[in-house]
Amino acid sequence: MARVYNFGAGPAMLPEVVLQQAQEELLDWQGSGMSIVEISHRSKKFMALVDETTNLLRELLAIPNQYKIIFLAAPCRSQFAMIPLNCIGNKTQADYLDTGLWSHQAIKEAKRYTNVNIVSSSENNGYTTIAKPETWKCDPTSAYLYYCANETVNGLALHEIPDAGTIPLACDMTSCFLAQPVDITRFGIVFAGAQKNIAPAGMTIVIVREDLIGHANAITPTTDNYQVNAAENSLYYTPNSFSIYMANLNFKWLQREGGLSAMQQCNQTKAKLLYEYIDNSGFYHNPVDPNYRSIMNVPFTLADQSLDESFLAEASRAGLAELKGHRTVGGMRASLYNAMPKAGVEALITFMQKFAKAHT
Amino acid sequence: MARVYNFGAGPAMLPEVVLQQAQEELLDWQGSGMSIVEISHRSKKFMALVDETTNLLRELLAIPNQYKIIFLAAPCRSQFAMIPLNCIGNKTQADYLDTGLWSHQAIKEAKRYTNVNIVSSSENNGYTTIAKPETWKCDPTSAYLYYCANETVNGLALHEIPDAGTIPLACDMTSCFLAQPVDITRFGIVFAGAQKNIAPAGMTIVIVREDLIGHANAITPTTDNYQVNAAENSLYYTPNSFSIYMANLNFKWLQREGGLSAMQQCNQTKAKLLYEYIDNSGFYHNPVDPNYRSIMNVPFTLADQSLDESFLAEASRAGLAELKGHRTVGGMRASLYNAMPKAGVEALITFMQKFAKAHT
Repeated sequence: MARVYNFGAGPAMLPEVVLQQAQEELLDWQGSGMSIVEISHRSKKFMALVDETTNLLRELLAIPNQYKIIFLAAPCRSQFAMIPLNCIGNKTQADYLDTGLWSHQAIKEAKRYTNVNIVSSSENNGYTTIAKPETWKCDPTSAYLYYCANETVNGLALHEIPDAGTIPLACDMTSCFLAQPVDITRFGIVFAGAQKNIAPAGMTIVIVREDLIGHANAITPTTDNYQVNAAENSLYYTPNSFSIYMANLNFKWLQREGGLSAMQQCNQTKAKLLYEYIDNSGFYHNPVDPNYRSIMNVPFTLADQSLDESFLAEASRAGLAELKGHRTVGGMRASLYNAMPKAGVEALITFMQKFAKAHT
Repeated sequence: MARVYNFGAGPAMLPEVVLQQAQEELLDWQGSGMSIVEISHRSKKFMALVDETTNLLRELLAIPNQYKIIFLAAPCRSQFAMIPLNCIGNKTQADYLDTGLWSHQAIKEAKRYTNVNIVSSSENNGYTTIAKPETWKCDPTSAYLYYCANETVNGLALHEIPDAGTIPLACDMTSCFLAQPVDITRFGIVFAGAQKNIAPAGMTIVIVREDLIGHANAITPTTDNYQVNAAENSLYYTPNSFSIYMANLNFKWLQREGGLSAMQQCNQTKAKLLYEYIDNSGFYHNPVDPNYRSIMNVPFTLADQSLDESFLAEASRAGLAELKGHRTVGGMRASLYNAMPKAGVEALITFMQKFAKAHT
C-alpha cells in the first residue's frame, strides 16, 4: 500500500529518501559488490563510514573534540546500568530527576549499583509538570545529575538544560535527539537510542566527555565499558553496521534539510499546530503543563474513552498509523519526530476535526 | 558492480534472494505502508514475526520446548560476560576449553566474574589441534563447561559434542550455527552472533535450557538477564527488529534449500574441495590437524608471504573478496558459510591454481 504517516513512538518513521537510498544500494554498497550488511567492519570502506558518521554528528551538534562519540550495538535501556557502572567512579551516590516512565526506570536500575538521590519527582502530579529547578534537592557530592530531556510516554519535556553546578549532567536524549540544536558542552554524557530520530533500532549513541571515562566499576562487562569502546572507535566488537549506515544517510539528510535549526523550526511548528488544535477542540485533551510539553510526543485523550477503538481504526484507514498511546497511560499519542512532515500533522488534525464533529 | 563472492568471516555473505526480498519490501512491509525498520515492536504484525522466527528456528534445529530462544540486541562478545553472570549461580567455578582466539577471550572475560578451570588448552600448539576429550581436566563442581565449537580466526573446530558429564555444556556456536544439524539436547546453553549464518550484525541468539535461567548474579544489568528477556519474549527492550526480520527471511531460505542436512552436505563438499586443493597444491598451506579442521573458515598461507598483497589484489579484481586472514594470524582465510555457493569455492580454487602457477 501507499506509505502512511506513522505516528509511532519508536521504532519510528524515517525519511522516505533515506529508505529509498538504502533500498537502491542494498545489494551493492559503494560499488563493492556487497551489501552494507555483508561488508567487514574492519574493511577500509566501513571504517571510513564510521569516521564519516562520527564527523557528521560532530558537525550537526557542534560536539567539541573532548567528547567521544560511541556507537553501541546495545538497546537504549542498557544505559540505565551502563551510566552508573561507568560513571559513579569513587563516589557513592548519583542525583536523578524523576519525570516519567523512562527516568523512573533509569532510577530503578541505578539503585542496583549506587545510592540514588531523587532531586525532584513528578510522580505525584501524574508526570504532567516538573518542579522549578531551584526547588530540586541536588547534592554536590553526587557523581552526576541524571535526567530524561523528553519523556516519550508521558509527553513531558524539560526544554531548559538544568544547571547541575559542579557535577556532570547525564542526559537521556533518546526521543528529542537531533530535534533541535543543543549545547553539548553543558553535559558530561548524553545518550540516545537510534529508533526515534537516528536509525533502525539496536544501536545507541553515547556522547561522553573524556574525563568521565576510564573509571568504570570493576564489575562492568567489557562490551559495556565506554573507555574500551571509545578507544576502539566503536569497533571493539562487530557493530550494528546497518544502523550506523542508516544514521549516516539520515545525518546527511538532516544537513540537506538545513541542519538542526531548520529541524527545530519545523518541529515547533508541527507541535504548535497540534497542541493548539487539541486545546481548542473541546473534544481532545492533553494533560501536560504547557511549559513542559514535549514537541516530539503528544499524548491526548478523547472526550469519551469508549471511542478510542473507533478512532484508531478510522485513523488507520485514513493512513494515520500507530496513534495508540503507551499501555501505561492509555489514550492516544502522536509522535512528531524529524521525519514526520508538516503535511502529516495537518492530515492528522483534519482527521481529528472530522472525527470530533461526527461524535459530538 | 556485479555481486562478488565474499569470503569474509563476518559480517558475511547473505543469500542473494534474501537481500532481494528485503530490498523489494524495504519501504512497505507486508502492506503496512511502513518499513520493517519503522514498525512498532509492540505491533501485532511485529510480535507475530518474532513468534514465527522463533518457531522457524525451533523447527530447523529441533529445539525442544524446555529451551528458551532469545533474540538479544547485543554483540556476540557480550555473552563472554553474560554466561558467567547468568549461569554461575551458587557455584564458584566454571570449566573452559581453550581452542583459539574467541574461547581465549571468553576465558579472559569469565575470570572477571568467577574462577576458571581450563580443562585443556591448544595455545601451545598454536591452536592447530585439540587434545582428546579423555585427557581434559574437567571438574564436576563447575557450573558449566564452555567451549567454542568453531574458532573463526584459527579455523579449528570440535566436530563432536563433548561429554560434560553432569554439568551443563555452554557453547559459542557463532560461526557454525545452522551449518549442520545439531543435537541441542546435549547443551545447556548455545549462543550465536547473527553476522555469520543468520542476519546482519547487532543481534545475538541465545538458546538456553529453562533450568539454567533465573539464577543471575545480582550485579547483572537487567538488559543482560536471560530470565527477563525470555519472560518478555525478546521484547523487554526495543529489539534489533531488522536483524530479526532478516533472520526470518534467512530461516525460510534454509527451509526451502532443504534444511540443515542439505546445508551440511553442501558445506562439507565446499570445504573438502578447498582443503584437498590446498593440501595437494604444494603452494598453499593449512596448518590445522585434519581431524579438527573447520568446515566454515579455512585459513591458509602462501608459499611466499611476500606474495600476500598481490594475491589479495588479484583475487579482489577477480570478484573474490575479503580473503585476508585475521590480523592476529596473518595469511588468508576463506569463510564458507551457508550463503557461499559451491560455484564461489570453485572460482576461488581456479584463481588459486592460476596464481600458484604464475608464481612457481
